[in-house]
This record gives sequence, structure tokens and C-alpha cells, in this order.
Amino acid sequence: MTDHPYYGQALHGPYELIDIGTLELEEGGAIPHCRLAVATHGQLNAARDNAILIPTWYSGTSKIMEQVYIGSARALDPEKYFIVIVNQIGNGLSTSPHNTPGPLGRASFPRVRIGDDVRAQHRLLTEHFGIDSLALVLGGSMGAQQTYEWAVRYPQMVKRAAPIAGTAKNTEHDFVFAETLIEAITSDPGFQNGDYAQSSDVAAGLQRHARLWTVMGWSTDFFRAGRHHALGFESMQSFVEQFMCGYFGPMDPNDLLCMAWKWQRGDVSRHTGGDLAAALGRIQAKTYVMPISHDMFFPPADCLLEQQLIPDSEFRPLDCIDGHLGLFGTDPACIDQLDANLRELLATAV
Amino acid sequence: MTDHPYYGQALHGPYELIDIGTLELEEGGAIPHCRLAVATHGQLNAARDNAILIPTWYSGTSKIMEQVYIGSARALDPEKYFIVIVNQIGNGLSTSPHNTPGPLGRASFPRVRIGDDVRAQHRLLTEHFGIDSLALVLGGSMGAQQTYEWAVRYPQMVKRAAPIAGTAKNTEHDFVFAETLIEAITSDPGFQNGDYAQSSDVAAGLQRHARLWTVMGWSTDFFRAGRHHALGFESMQSFVEQFMCGYFGPMDPNDLLCMAWKWQRGDVSRHTGGDLAAALGRIQAKTYVMPISHDMFFPPADCLLEQQLIPDSEFRPLDCIDGHLGLFGTDPACIDQLDANLRELLATAV
Repeated sequence: MTDHPYYGQALHGPYELIDIGTLELEEGGAIPHCRLAVATHGQLNAARDNAILIPTWYSGTSKIMEQVYIGSARALDPEKYFIVIVNQIGNGLSTSPHNTPGPLGRASFPRVRIGDDVRAQHRLLTEHFGIDSLALVLGGSMGAQQTYEWAVRYPQMVKRAAPIAGTAKNTEHDFVFAETLIEAITSDPGFQNGDYAQSSDVAAGLQRHARLWTVMGWSTDFFRAGRHHALGFESMQSFVEQFMCGYFGPMDPNDLLCMAWKWQRGDVSRHTGGDLAAALGRIQAKTYVMPISHDMFFPPADCLLEQQLIPDSEFRPLDCIDGHLGLFGTDPACIDQLDANLRELLATAV
Repeated sequence: MTDHPYYGQALHGPYELIDIGTLELEEGGAIPHCRLAVATHGQLNAARDNAILIPTWYSGTSKIMEQVYIGSARALDPEKYFIVIVNQIGNGLSTSPHNTPGPLGRASFPRVRIGDDVRAQHRLLTEHFGIDSLALVLGGSMGAQQTYEWAVRYPQMVKRAAPIAGTAKNTEHDFVFAETLIEAITSDPGFQNGDYAQSSDVAAGLQRHARLWTVMGWSTDFFRAGRHHALGFESMQSFVEQFMCGYFGPMDPNDLLCMAWKWQRGDVSRHTGGDLAAALGRIQAKTYVMPISHDMFFPPADCLLEQQLIPDSEFRPLDCIDGHLGLFGTDPACIDQLDANLRELLATAV
């Protein structure tokens, strides 16, 4: 594996790398020795029915899920639940373009779909951990895409689901937004069709990518309210350069592109010949659909349409002007709403 | 002047090129023989009090204002009003980077501000047309920026004002959005720091720029409702490639960048040491502030804050899921609302 200063135990640990064997891919080909980076919190109980699965979002790792979403006396309480956070394929900790040696590595990394991640996680849970029932699956953004895929693909196994700020079928608008992110990176001459020597060779592209996230990731209301100043940045320029570019700058371009391609194509209706109602109708989990009120690319209205197709579901939007990146936990009141919803959901008999 | 296949009488005429002499610029320097491309409709009455001024938006010309906003029995009726549409500096018809020969041309074109445009238009109206009273100034987007600048800078001359889908002081969020548009173009190796041979050398950058407009120019609701299909495009791909890339593709990159820089810095509070309330408090015009409900970068909430600072004003948002580019007239119901508002505004005694 290629070393990379950003990805590793120092910044994102502790996690365990678990080899789940060869993962056949929906787009063809396979990942041999597919490794999932897994962080667990708490203990599996004797009945093996207190497991919670959390998949990760675009650019995120298990670390932010641990820091922002899990805690003693929180809804996701490791003293009550066995919480398994699985880093998505391509995120830099699990098997990813940058850490795959040989002919499948870097720009030659195969196309991975949300369904591939979910099958990989299913194998991990059933074969490695001996879990065949999940008290809850939850995730934000691409984590929501994986949550929906779980609930549709393994309806009997998922007792409760909480997709946050994400959709079951990606929209055309969101597809083009993700395309602009991809183009910001691939248009950098330093990208060299993915054959750059190091992330910093693509610094300009990664900065453009970060600026796009600045525009779409927060909201007009966030900036009007001066939330970027409240977060500790004197100017818009320092917010963009230090926070946004600082966040994305160290990441591996091929890894980001692997996730972006996957994000664009999230769609549970692939199971039902394109019939979204039929796919969502398969869900048996008690489901709380939780968009963020000011999300500019997974807006509540898109999520509401899907929620209405899920049998045992409730629409629980989170009121938060931080927009999509409220997922980062920048607004404690938003996280409080989320916790209250999760507490209620976990208390629901299923 | 450099010939350019897109800009000219064939596609945008008829208009008249009027030399207003040397225009001193707020950022320093001057444009000698500044030419404004002007299209007029109707006749100035004997009292010289029936003139309406329409400045243009980013990438737009007088042609779309004529086609979408003016008409017999419309609010802007050439049988009642003398309507003067002035193309903004840099838009490709008026003096612009691409049509300026010599050392001030192309990438060396000087920085132009909204205030420069408005002073140029003031000179045109007073000296060329002998107009010292405007029944109405209106415009969309950058046209709204110029409308606000007019109402603040020449409060006694502007009797009524209708800024549509734009702000008096550009927001930090909008600044960064415009920055992503700029970067989409300047990051193209074919841009050559503005020294490209022809627009098509920057085709990739112009296409990225068009994709960004696809994401931010319309709205998530527009695409959810299939409005792009209703406009005649079978797929999102054809909408992006034919309509959006087709629209921006032929334009001159330096011209677009001249306008984008200007757009980023629109701010009437430059007249009052940064005090926006004081600047807007100067407005004497009866003002209808008309944001578009689903605008993703000039959102109604930003416009409402400004409207509340204008003495004789009303907030008249246009309900339209097409978002900002509803300005193109894609939704007849939106244009009907606009016409009704303008009719009422024009009927108001001042």
C-alpha cells in the first residue's frame, strides 16, 4: 500500500482493517482482499441484537462519526449498543485507489457502487461479527445512500433506519453538482489522468473543489447569519482557505473521485427495474427520514417524496441553517434534534 | 475591433453603438471612446418623463430584455414608454475586452465596477438623449445591481425602481459562487491568462462554467418537477450540453470575466463608507423588490433585508420554481407576476 500522510491511525484511528476476501463488483471485476476499516464502540450483547451500523459519507471517515454522533448518554450510547462504523470503500482508510497496489490501484481502481459497499458490509457483519440483525442503520449523505440500500436490500435484517441528509435515488440536479466537483479535480493539469505523484500536485483542483463545497455545502442563510464567523473565522477568505481548503486539501484525488462516482449513481430502484416506489416499498425498517432544512443539494422536498413511499416511516427534518455540512456537528442544536429523533426511534418496538 | 461570431447585430440587433467619450473608472484608469450598445423602443414624449431604463445582466444582452420583457399591452409598452436598454460594459456588445483594440484590450481590459456602468448610462441619458427623469429603472441580477446603484447614486432622477433577482450589496456567498465561475474558465489551460486565440480554445472551461450555472442557476425544485424536460430536452445530459453549454459556449471568456469581477463587487454602500442602511436610505424611488422565490444565490431572504432599508418600498417576490434563470422567461406565470407588479408600480403616482 502507498503511504499517505492524511490517511491512517494517527488522524483517524483507532480502527481495524478487516479483510473480507474478494468483493465482486456490480460494474464488473472484483477487488481481491477487500479491506474494510472498521471502528467499533461498545459490546455486542448475548442476544446479538444491539448492533448499530454507521456507514460514512463523502470525504468522511469513522472518526467524525465517533466524535460528533456517539457518546455516553447520547442516543448512540456505546454502553447500550454495539456500534460498528464502517468506512466506505474509496474513503482512504478502507480499500481505496491510493492504497491499492498493482494494476487495480490509483486511476485504474474499479468502479464501485453503493450496492458493493453494502454487500461488503453485510459480509463483514454476518461473517466476521456474527450479526444477523441490526437495531439501527444510520448515516448522513452518502451514509444515507448506504442506509437506504441496506434497508431495501436486506429488509429483514434492518430493524430501524435513519437516513440523514441523503436520498435513496440520487437526483439529476445532485448528479450535476457532483460532476462539477469531479471536474474541479480532473481539470487540473497536475491531475495527469490520475497519475499524479502526490495530492499536492492537484492542489489547485482540490481548492476549486473546496470552493464548490463552500457554495453548496452550507447555505445562503449560514453566511447571512455570519455562522462562518461564529465558527471562528475572521473573514470569508480565511473560512474558505483555512477551513474548506484545509479540510479537503490533504485528501487523495483518486479516492475522492471514486466516492463521487459512487455518490452520483446511488439508486435503490436498481433492484426493481427503476421502480422507486416498489424498491422503497420493500423496506421493513421503522424509518425516520431526516433531511436538513437548508440543504442545497439533498433538499427536504426531495427526501419527503421518498419518505412517502416507505411503509413504516416518518418525516423528521432537522431545522438547521448550516445546510448539508451541518452534518459536521457545527450546530449543537441540530445534533440535539438528531439525538432526540434517534432516541425516539431506538425506543420504538419493532 | 476584433470580430466575434456571437456578438453583433445579426444575433442581438438592432442596437446603436453610442460613443460617450472617455469614461474614468473607479478602480483607476479610463476607457477612451467608451461605446454603449443601446436599443430603444418607443418614443420620448414632449414632457421627457416617460423614459424607462433597463440595464443588462451577466451574459445577457438587450435582445433578451426586448424579447421577454417588452411588448405592446405589456407593462413595458413601447406605445406608452420610451424604453432604453443599455448593454453593460463588458457584455460583448458595449465596449468589452474582446472588442477593444490595443493595449487595453482582452486580458488587459481595465477593472470596471457597477458604478462605472451607471455613470456611463447617466451620461448617455442626460447628454445623448436629454433625459433627466426616469419613470422606472429595472433589471434582473446584475441589472438589479445597476438598478440599486442608479437609485442610490441619482435618487432624484429615478422615480421608480424594480430590482429583480439581485441585491444592492453582494453577499459573501454569492461572491464565492461567482469565484467558482471565474475559476472554471481561468483554470482551462487554453485560457492562457486571457491570451487565447478564440473562445473555442477555452471550450472545456466554458462547459464547466455552464455546468455550474446548471447547478445554481435553476433550482432543485425545477429539476424535480422535470421543468428541463418541459422545456424540450429529453435528458439532463441534453439539457446541459445543448441548452446550457450551447448558451455560454460561444461567449468570450474575457468578456464574461469582466462582468463576473464586477458582479462580485456590486455594493451601494461604497457611497456611505460601508453603511448599507444609510445608502439604501437615500433612495427616493418607489421601489418594488422582486426576488425569485427559488433563487439559489440571490435568495429572497437576502433581498428582504435590503428592502426593509428602503423608505418607499415593497417586497414583491415572484413565485417561480425555475430559480434565478426564471429571468429567461421560461415560466410564463412568473413573467405574468412581474408584469402585474410593474403595471402597479408604473401606475403609482410619484
